[in-house]
Amino acid sequence: MQKTFFNKLATKTAGKSLTAIAAVLLTHSSLVSAAAASELASTAVAASKTDNVNVSYQIKHLEPSSWWVDMKSPALQLLVHGDNISELTPQIKADKVVIKQINKVANPNYLFVDVIIREGTKPHRFNIDFLQDNEVVISHPYQLKARNKTSAADISFSAKDVIYLVTPDRFANGNPNNDQVPQLLERKNRTAPGGRHGGDLQGIINHLNYIEDMGYTQIWLNPVVENNQQEYSYHGYSATDFYQIDARFGDNALYKKLATEAQKRGIGLIIDVVLNHSGSGHWWHNDLPTEDWYNNQGKVYVGTNHKREALHDPYAVNADKQLFSDGWFVPTMPDLNQRNSYLANYLIQNTLWWIEYANLSGIRVDTYSYPDKAFLTQWTKRVTDEYPNINIVGEEWSTNPAIVAYWQKGANTHDGYQSYLPSVMDFPMQDLLVKALTNKESWNTGLNQLYQVLANDFLYAAPEDLVIFPDNHDMSRIFTQLNEDYELFKIAMTYLMTTRGIPQVFYGTEILMANPGTTNHGVIRTDFPGGWQGDDVSGFTGKGLTSTQKKAQEFMRKLMNWRKNTPTIHHGELRHYAPESGVYVYFRYDELNKYMVVINKNASEVTLAMEKYSELLGKAKSLIPVLNNKPIAIQENMLMPAKTATIFQVR
Amino acid sequence: MQKTFFNKLATKTAGKSLTAIAAVLLTHSSLVSAAAASELASTAVAASKTDNVNVSYQIKHLEPSSWWVDMKSPALQLLVHGDNISELTPQIKADKVVIKQINKVANPNYLFVDVIIREGTKPHRFNIDFLQDNEVVISHPYQLKARNKTSAADISFSAKDVIYLVTPDRFANGNPNNDQVPQLLERKNRTAPGGRHGGDLQGIINHLNYIEDMGYTQIWLNPVVENNQQEYSYHGYSATDFYQIDARFGDNALYKKLATEAQKRGIGLIIDVVLNHSGSGHWWHNDLPTEDWYNNQGKVYVGTNHKREALHDPYAVNADKQLFSDGWFVPTMPDLNQRNSYLANYLIQNTLWWIEYANLSGIRVDTYSYPDKAFLTQWTKRVTDEYPNINIVGEEWSTNPAIVAYWQKGANTHDGYQSYLPSVMDFPMQDLLVKALTNKESWNTGLNQLYQVLANDFLYAAPEDLVIFPDNHDMSRIFTQLNEDYELFKIAMTYLMTTRGIPQVFYGTEILMANPGTTNHGVIRTDFPGGWQGDDVSGFTGKGLTSTQKKAQEFMRKLMNWRKNTPTIHHGELRHYAPESGVYVYFRYDELNKYMVVINKNASEVTLAMEKYSELLGKAKSLIPVLNNKPIAIQENMLMPAKTATIFQVR
Repeated sequence: MQKTFFNKLATKTAGKSLTAIAAVLLTHSSLVSAAAASELASTAVAASKTDNVNVSYQIKHLEPSSWWVDMKSPALQLLVHGDNISELTPQIKADKVVIKQINKVANPNYLFVDVIIREGTKPHRFNIDFLQDNEVVISHPYQLKARNKTSAADISFSAKDVIYLVTPDRFANGNPNNDQVPQLLERKNRTAPGGRHGGDLQGIINHLNYIEDMGYTQIWLNPVVENNQQEYSYHGYSATDFYQIDARFGDNALYKKLATEAQKRGIGLIIDVVLNHSGSGHWWHNDLPTEDWYNNQGKVYVGTNHKREALHDPYAVNADKQLFSDGWFVPTMPDLNQRNSYLANYLIQNTLWWIEYANLSGIRVDTYSYPDKAFLTQWTKRVTDEYPNINIVGEEWSTNPAIVAYWQKGANTHDGYQSYLPSVMDFPMQDLLVKALTNKESWNTGLNQLYQVLANDFLYAAPEDLVIFPDNHDMSRIFTQLNEDYELFKIAMTYLMTTRGIPQVFYGTEILMANPGTTNHGVIRTDFPGGWQGDDVSGFTGKGLTSTQKKAQEFMRKLMNWRKNTPTIHHGELRHYAPESGVYVYFRYDELNKYMVVINKNASEVTLAMEKYSELLGKAKSLIPVLNNKPIAIQENMLMPAKTATIFQVR
Repeated sequence: MQKTFFNKLATKTAGKSLTAIAAVLLTHSSLVSAAAASELASTAVAASKTDNVNVSYQIKHLEPSSWWVDMKSPALQLLVHGDNISELTPQIKADKVVIKQINKVANPNYLFVDVIIREGTKPHRFNIDFLQDNEVVISHPYQLKARNKTSAADISFSAKDVIYLVTPDRFANGNPNNDQVPQLLERKNRTAPGGRHGGDLQGIINHLNYIEDMGYTQIWLNPVVENNQQEYSYHGYSATDFYQIDARFGDNALYKKLATEAQKRGIGLIIDVVLNHSGSGHWWHNDLPTEDWYNNQGKVYVGTNHKREALHDPYAVNADKQLFSDGWFVPTMPDLNQRNSYLANYLIQNTLWWIEYANLSGIRVDTYSYPDKAFLTQWTKRVTDEYPNINIVGEEWSTNPAIVAYWQKGANTHDGYQSYLPSVMDFPMQDLLVKALTNKESWNTGLNQLYQVLANDFLYAAPEDLVIFPDNHDMSRIFTQLNEDYELFKIAMTYLMTTRGIPQVFYGTEILMANPGTTNHGVIRTDFPGGWQGDDVSGFTGKGLTSTQKKAQEFMRKLMNWRKNTPTIHHGELRHYAPESGVYVYFRYDELNKYMVVINKNASEVTLAMEKYSELLGKAKSLIPVLNNKPIAIQENMLMPAKTATIFQVR
């Protein structure tokens, strides 16, 4: 890669001035570090001034680089970036593609070009010409493609699915050749918890059969776009190019291939979208289109207070509301100002672009409540206008269901606010699931806390659409949270797979991955064993796993495959009984089937007086434990084994 | 008392049969134990059958025993109780008072008589005649009185007030002669935590000056109606006669006198109403009007599950919902079925009767969510129709604000339910106030929990109307909950007196009464020292109080009297800043005044950078600590003393 680049450079710059070389380099800024590009740019500008040389105009970025015909909205706004590009006038000579408006901003290096793609436009290629004094200075090729015939976003993810959350750097290293690349700053360091370990898209493709076999039907990858930061960039949440897959993970084509290969196995691919911030290594960081592109006057770091309550709080001071929305996460993640309509358009189109480009099944939105509220309505509206059946789940990390519920489409909000977000992450359930299993039983603790999770569902517009999870990449692994108690682990997983909502499982949960004694994110996101050549242990083949790990994996495989083939769990009604004495019983049912789940948290077996459940058992004769299929006749009193969750089919 | 009764009995029964004696006894059933009355009743019935003797008809109860003209509603429903009373036909010969309908129920010993008091009826006395074969068998005197000229319920209680919650048996024994009375079962036992200690209404009247001097402006008494139970009856929540003050507390006239005497000092009297249950010693217990008068088929005890969540829970089984509403608290508190319209009317009229009779200022409703929901709407509507400005606060003991908020008038409820309840008890704040002060500070614990209380106010229709409290008669005393830390106590009290809502203080809080090492309710409700003749210590005179107790009392006196005279705290706007590093700052203000409250929970003094508060400080020049009046110029950085809450007037 490095060799190719320098060969190209040598060819293109032969016999040219320093300024010209710099200009060429800048058109390839994604291939050099942001710092180096910036230095070269300064040199070039200095050179042009002192040498009085005319810099030839060049387009450094034109985004999105392609689009589609037959989108529901005919509008497209192109961001064009190049030194003094605003001195040129873009022009399109195509039958049904017209420039509606050319927008200039404070920075002369940007143009925002409003294009209309009229109904009936056929897929084709054409040039966008940039003119000075009626003369074409640059002719930029552009393509309008045909849309996907069927959209994965039409099926999207729902309670029919189990989502596998994968941190791409940490799952499997399918291509050791891309572990580090010359044009991206951070090198590989597998021994550092926060370093780049070499996992990639090819690694995930290689193990799709494993994922399918386990029973997962959706994959949510932490972001895979370019994160060209100096350090701690493996997580993907510091985008430095919103349109490019990070070269250490693969490239755009490979990402599309992953989606295609997954679909062949009935698995959807969910994109992790970050609307709140970019990375400080983003190509625009040192040449912002407008002064208000970032919040808090450009590059001054002001940390967010994380007080999401302030958005709802009738007594909040403006300072706290503003600090929440406009404060940055960390100095390397400048906070984007989505009130800027060009940026808003940019982010919306970027999302649409990926969905259509890779035929994705849905979206997970990072730090959902932090961006501008009006923008969130706009973004969700335009995405769902284009893909009416797409599921989008927002991350609102609060254990207060009234605050989480606020963001879901159709919510009965206190201030009339509405967005079009179909789903939210169920953080309140995560919190209480762990407390329910680890706290002692009392009238309001233990299993009663799990009962309260669902009792609070009156706050949600559509609780059945929430994404539920025992842990994720930002918190201790569930096995650790449950003090490595395997029985409690099985109860937690059984609950997750039988209650309302869309279960999400973090990679490695099925083999009891843990983070004992630390909450270091790099440790929580430990490499999946077997994903690297030479690994002694493999979660894929079972080699070197402990017997408990093997049991857990087999348990999860059975449970998730049963769930996959049990529509009643996907869409059935739910009824539950208030827990008593460490026993929690609930039912899922539809016209055809009925399931009874009995959680006995006690260290000893208990006798269930079945009369209590007559409202739901009706005249049923037998119970069939679904994971071992031996029917048991319903008797007046039935023994339930200690510390278990049992799923029965009611017959 | 006993002597008089037996003299009367002797006169009336001279020369009469056993049946006749029993009948006479029954007309005085409030003078004998319920068990004895019941036994006599059986004997009487048996005697009448075997002896074929005609029992002369007698009215044992006719309730309400009086009413008023000029009520907004012309309707009045009389409950008439007497052996086979339904064989008689009531008749009223009065100008504008007519019987609209006579209702019989399954039990022939009851009549429910619908009366209309037409507009323009003058206050007067008349007889209600009960006829058999057109002959008057009983002539029962009745009175329609003139209403109070001004109603205390028109001013009612609000954020202008501080409510003093008093357990009458435990505050002061003003009349040692009524500590036990022959006709009521339980005797005095001051050494037993759960026994009758002798406190009474006269004791409260005697100390109204103390209450006024402290700065309290409302008194809420635990119920004072008759609780003629065998044992554990001092608390007042087991009514055995809804229309009679318990003779050990005084009588109806004395209760009225208490209200009048309190009003002279600007103090309102709040009645504690129990709609959910009566005591098992109630006169109707062994002769219920209908089979459905009590929930769960009469006298079969089925305990409530206390799962108030079930009322909101979309997945609740009917069994859980019903058990919550219809289950009993304890076997001695039979659960009333307010779906029975006669009982509903009875309870509504009983409330109206006390408000008008004693000119009360407002209502506290016990176990608010437990009665039938539709009845609660009906009860609140009819009470507020009659007294549009009355405040009523309901007890919904949940720490979940979404559940508490549901019951307040105007709430944005998930199911469209509406009642007319103006106020609810702020249990979520109580819970978090203690946690905020005793938990360590972190991003979401400590003072942040206090911040979250108010941030959640978006859930309430009218958060400013909530009754707020650091403790009450059903939980550990606040000084105990704060681990007897006097500095934290002062912070808690300062918060209570300056945040939104209507503060309520439990008697003895001002002298740091505590319940170390136990949560026994009888200990929590310890006798107020000085209330009994011969007490070594007196909270009223200060005799024998520790120096910290004296400081606390003086602090509370100053704080509450300052609050009493500071309307800005009653109705002013509230703005608060998200806490940082153990410091929480908020403001109360109106057009005329502004107050800044700074809570520093740290064990050391902190420097406040005042710039942070510019949004609310504006161009203010000085801060005046309101409790010591020495103005301080506002500087860039200001020192705040360790572990304090300081109230400043901003100038």
